[in-house]
Amino acid sequence: MKKLYAVGLGPGDGQTMTPQAVAAIEESQVICGYTVYIDLIRPLCQGKEVITTAMTREIDRCRMALEQAAAGKTTAMVCSGDAGVYGMASLLLELGQQFPEVEIEAVAGVTAALSGGALLGAPLAHDFAVISLSDLLTPWPLIEKRLAAAAQADFVLCLYNPRSKKRADYLKKACDIVMRSQSPETVCGLAWNIGRPGQRTKLTTLARLPEEEADMFTTVFIGNSQTQALSGRMVTPRGYENKGR
Amino acid sequence: MKKLYAVGLGPGDGQTMTPQAVAAIEESQVICGYTVYIDLIRPLCQGKEVITTAMTREIDRCRMALEQAAAGKTTAMVCSGDAGVYGMASLLLELGQQFPEVEIEAVAGVTAALSGGALLGAPLAHDFAVISLSDLLTPWPLIEKRLAAAAQADFVLCLYNPRSKKRADYLKKACDIVMRSQSPETVCGLAWNIGRPGQRTKLTTLARLPEEEADMFTTVFIGNSQTQALSGRMVTPRGYENKGR
Repeated sequence: MKKLYAVGLGPGDGQTMTPQAVAAIEESQVICGYTVYIDLIRPLCQGKEVITTAMTREIDRCRMALEQAAAGKTTAMVCSGDAGVYGMASLLLELGQQFPEVEIEAVAGVTAALSGGALLGAPLAHDFAVISLSDLLTPWPLIEKRLAAAAQADFVLCLYNPRSKKRADYLKKACDIVMRSQSPETVCGLAWNIGRPGQRTKLTTLARLPEEEADMFTTVFIGNSQTQALSGRMVTPRGYENKGR
Repeated sequence: MKKLYAVGLGPGDGQTMTPQAVAAIEESQVICGYTVYIDLIRPLCQGKEVITTAMTREIDRCRMALEQAAAGKTTAMVCSGDAGVYGMASLLLELGQQFPEVEIEAVAGVTAALSGGALLGAPLAHDFAVISLSDLLTPWPLIEKRLAAAAQADFVLCLYNPRSKKRADYLKKACDIVMRSQSPETVCGLAWNIGRPGQRTKLTTLARLPEEEADMFTTVFIGNSQTQALSGRMVTPRGYENKGR
């Protein structure tokens, strides 16, 4: 069987890469991915063909990986976090329809919602929604609709791609929408450069969140009405206190 | 520093446990958790004090772990999936307020949304909401409100705890709510016993989803309006096709 793995590497350092991800990379003859992700796994790539590409041209990149696999070389496409969450797995599966001889297997990884959440405390301990603020592939009105709906139903929110140079005001816009349903005092958290040099976290409030530095390597958490700041940690209760102690 | 780790083990087999989780367990003198989770990591527990508990009494269990750590023994509380997602991390942090000398560190793990998603294909490749259908700790009307809001805003949904003996009709009720906004033909998927004996997946439609077997070891995925079934895989496109090829 001709095989292509879509591998999630976790947030950055090797400390969160699963044995399954390591095994998929070791089994592969060809490793594809952004240069910055390949650099994370350089020692695993020795003796393999490595195809690095720049930050765009996702379709070309995925097609190239499929062609390598179709040529009989077991191939791994690596992504940071989880390959299925805003990663390459879905595009590989879509384009893979043209390569029926290639079996595509996704290998799950620790996405930034989980790794950033752990650094902050336990913000995602109750129902939560994950939303990307990037409008490169999604119309902004749909993003706004999702923010409003999730806030109104008191989901904890985890925001990916909270801001870029071209979208400097999107985080502010998002906070304004959430604030229609949630208190300005809602506990919020940020995690920067998870698993990389410069890793840090901060707690703040919904009203102050737009003042924070944020870029494509930042993950933002907006609590629900129950989320608390406890000794510098962001904690969403599951509700045990309502059951009596 | 007195230390307590809240460790996510991933879905079951060792293949998704991160090196960070293994290191936290190895560093610990005391390991706490449900018997079924401890069994997953038996070889790592040799020579350690192991405290297993039954499936309820979460508050007692967490307090016991905090007491062990406060007594100077580095302790790990293990959970399946991610300790922060419907796990013990938030309760530990809450109760930890009474144990200020104990530093609590959460260690992220691959939660069922990610591991089940990878088995099914790439259902969570666009904005998604995670909702537990268990009303043990959450009033059912709030769960209904979240289901309705998320479906109306076209989130992909990932449902935890979709059904139990006491709540045999909850998955049906949830599907009825989602169907107010989404087509009965919406692509859905189920993952049973992820990473355990009996692991399997199935694709179905929203109309047929309530007929499926589901229990507390089942994770349910309901697609958004764009989700497709492609060669037996559940795939939510990110939207590259709209950008031209």
